[in-house]
Amino acid sequence: MRGCGLIVEYNPFHNGHKYHLDQSQQASNADCMIAVMSGNFLQRGEPAIIDKHHRAKLAVSQGADLVIELPYYYAVQHSELFAEGAIKLLSTLKADHICFGSEHGDITGFLEMINLLKNNFTEFHYHLKQALNKGNSYPRANELAFRQIGGEHLSLDFTQPNNILGTQYVSKILQIDPAIQPLTVKRQQNNYHDRQISIPFASATSIRKELLTVDKESDLSETVPAETTEILNQYKSAFGCWHEWEQYYSYLYYRILTMETDDLKKIHGIKEGLENRIISSIREATDFQQLMRKMKTKRYTWTSLQRIFANILTNTTKDEIEAKLHVPPPLRILAMSPTGIKYLNYLKQYDQKFFTSNKKPYPDHDFDNRIASAYYSILSIEKQHTAKKQDFKPPYMMA
Amino acid sequence: MRGCGLIVEYNPFHNGHKYHLDQSQQASNADCMIAVMSGNFLQRGEPAIIDKHHRAKLAVSQGADLVIELPYYYAVQHSELFAEGAIKLLSTLKADHICFGSEHGDITGFLEMINLLKNNFTEFHYHLKQALNKGNSYPRANELAFRQIGGEHLSLDFTQPNNILGTQYVSKILQIDPAIQPLTVKRQQNNYHDRQISIPFASATSIRKELLTVDKESDLSETVPAETTEILNQYKSAFGCWHEWEQYYSYLYYRILTMETDDLKKIHGIKEGLENRIISSIREATDFQQLMRKMKTKRYTWTSLQRIFANILTNTTKDEIEAKLHVPPPLRILAMSPTGIKYLNYLKQYDQKFFTSNKKPYPDHDFDNRIASAYYSILSIEKQHTAKKQDFKPPYMMA
Repeated sequence: MRGCGLIVEYNPFHNGHKYHLDQSQQASNADCMIAVMSGNFLQRGEPAIIDKHHRAKLAVSQGADLVIELPYYYAVQHSELFAEGAIKLLSTLKADHICFGSEHGDITGFLEMINLLKNNFTEFHYHLKQALNKGNSYPRANELAFRQIGGEHLSLDFTQPNNILGTQYVSKILQIDPAIQPLTVKRQQNNYHDRQISIPFASATSIRKELLTVDKESDLSETVPAETTEILNQYKSAFGCWHEWEQYYSYLYYRILTMETDDLKKIHGIKEGLENRIISSIREATDFQQLMRKMKTKRYTWTSLQRIFANILTNTTKDEIEAKLHVPPPLRILAMSPTGIKYLNYLKQYDQKFFTSNKKPYPDHDFDNRIASAYYSILSIEKQHTAKKQDFKPPYMMA
Repeated sequence: MRGCGLIVEYNPFHNGHKYHLDQSQQASNADCMIAVMSGNFLQRGEPAIIDKHHRAKLAVSQGADLVIELPYYYAVQHSELFAEGAIKLLSTLKADHICFGSEHGDITGFLEMINLLKNNFTEFHYHLKQALNKGNSYPRANELAFRQIGGEHLSLDFTQPNNILGTQYVSKILQIDPAIQPLTVKRQQNNYHDRQISIPFASATSIRKELLTVDKESDLSETVPAETTEILNQYKSAFGCWHEWEQYYSYLYYRILTMETDDLKKIHGIKEGLENRIISSIREATDFQQLMRKMKTKRYTWTSLQRIFANILTNTTKDEIEAKLHVPPPLRILAMSPTGIKYLNYLKQYDQKFFTSNKKPYPDHDFDNRIASAYYSILSIEKQHTAKKQDFKPPYMMA
């Protein structure tokens, strides 16, 4: 059987994701579409609007055959580690192709870029370091270093977020499993960061904004599949809310202000005395947006700060991340179609170990319980109990 | 000047407290009534119904001249350490008398008891240890050991909670500063643990129950001074609520379920594998009462468990308590009358160091910030900011 890997967050699933899924199937001619999906927290350091179980079920309803969780310690990371975790999982899953969406839409542009990078490795890293030392954020330093080695003469626009991510994917494929063939499809939706909705290809950001604006009814029928609206509503009626950072602020505030500074320093992502700025900023900020505005500098991007706050909320330390990154990520199935089940049978010849819930001996049992406790903390206690039970049930199987 | 020390919690101040204050003044003929009062968390491991600033102000309005904070690490402890902290502070404050309320009401009964204990020290401790080993709680083991050395032939009923506490006070006075003369007045109010209100001397427990029952208006005019009602209402209109354990449950739940077991073991009061029972109990309990009922055993009293949960909520570790108990408790003034100010001037000859707020170099600056953050966590963030500002203002001074 032929498998095509997708690296996704589906927060929430929209028409652009459907387009990517269908186009990837056509481009790869795969039998099984394998989505590696972030869990309850996402690459930008945000809680997902609905939990991983509901997003995985939705993905299968839209054509994914297997949904595998990208563990927190790869998902809530900068793009290089995010890509590394996903490619490792897709390599273990014997994917023949990996197809990603990009602004560029032509795989040769990515290969050119990686070649340039490889041929100018020392120079690139020298410039990267210089730029970081000048107080630039990592993405900005990366861009400056690429320019220094002549990157702007390539066809690929490396200031576009999905092109940057795609470069990481291709680069990690070449490092980890060059047998996988990278493919890309051109994104149809509007800009990644757009906050205004546009039909029919709106960005997930603009869709979330629409959903989370409390004082109006959202009509998303022209930008998301009907099942997205259905599952979003199911989630809200079961658990009482959709998730966004602002709702967690009282927990974050409580947690930071009852922590010892030494313990705050142990949290993954905190360095260079950032702990002191966090403490003094949170003392004054009355909501999450205020906190972020107080914290934001040239050096620290919005997303890098959000990831740090996610690590504080979930109590994730440097040492723990270090240990987790040193072992292969476990394969946890969140949802599957009948084709996905066939694919798992086909994989049996490779003797891969799968996990179908958070039951022991799942190696991330305790870790995942903790992440889930942080993610669901904003629900009533009764609803938290119900929500957490999902983690111990078999994965969703489409009939 | 002559000072008379009182050891109090005033949760909230009621007619029985007023009686104790007036009677103590008469019995001691003191110029200055000094109340050593627990801060935001109390000996039974509960959050105080209103914060220490409001309770201190109320105490001064009722005749206390100086209100000094008994620090968390002495207040939220078993009766022996609670007594030790209070007597240490009153010794530093050069109190001539300490007058406590008791069921017994006659100081000779306490002295007899202490003599008996002193004369049978080894035997008493042998029986105490035996009783603890059999799984009895500390108060119960204490009672059994007293019986073994013939305690039931004394006039003092050592099963009564305020008699037990009084014994600790007298015993600590003899150890720490025998120049202080102990006095006792007979309590007028109904039983310490009574949950039913009785007029005019209701227990603080029954008064809190009355106040915290949300579905009815409370009329406490016959059991508390008018100022108590006034200050309770002031507090609620300023901060939005009165404090009780149940409101903290979502924080406690979040905190415990995002903690590493090893960190839970470091919390003061957790031993003998209790961390595992806490984790398994809280996973199932949907409110604080349920949690307590699941946790309660012969060995662990309700109050000892509440103290442990207060330590978890405030992130107070064994190591930290150990370190704090090894240095003299700082004298922090919460409120004072003109007489109190005169008394502080009179004390100048002794070169005592006082603190009038949580401003540095107050030695518990960070510690107190943490305790306050935990205590006020149930308020809105804006109200938490306002509430915490009180800690950095000068103490309340009665005009």
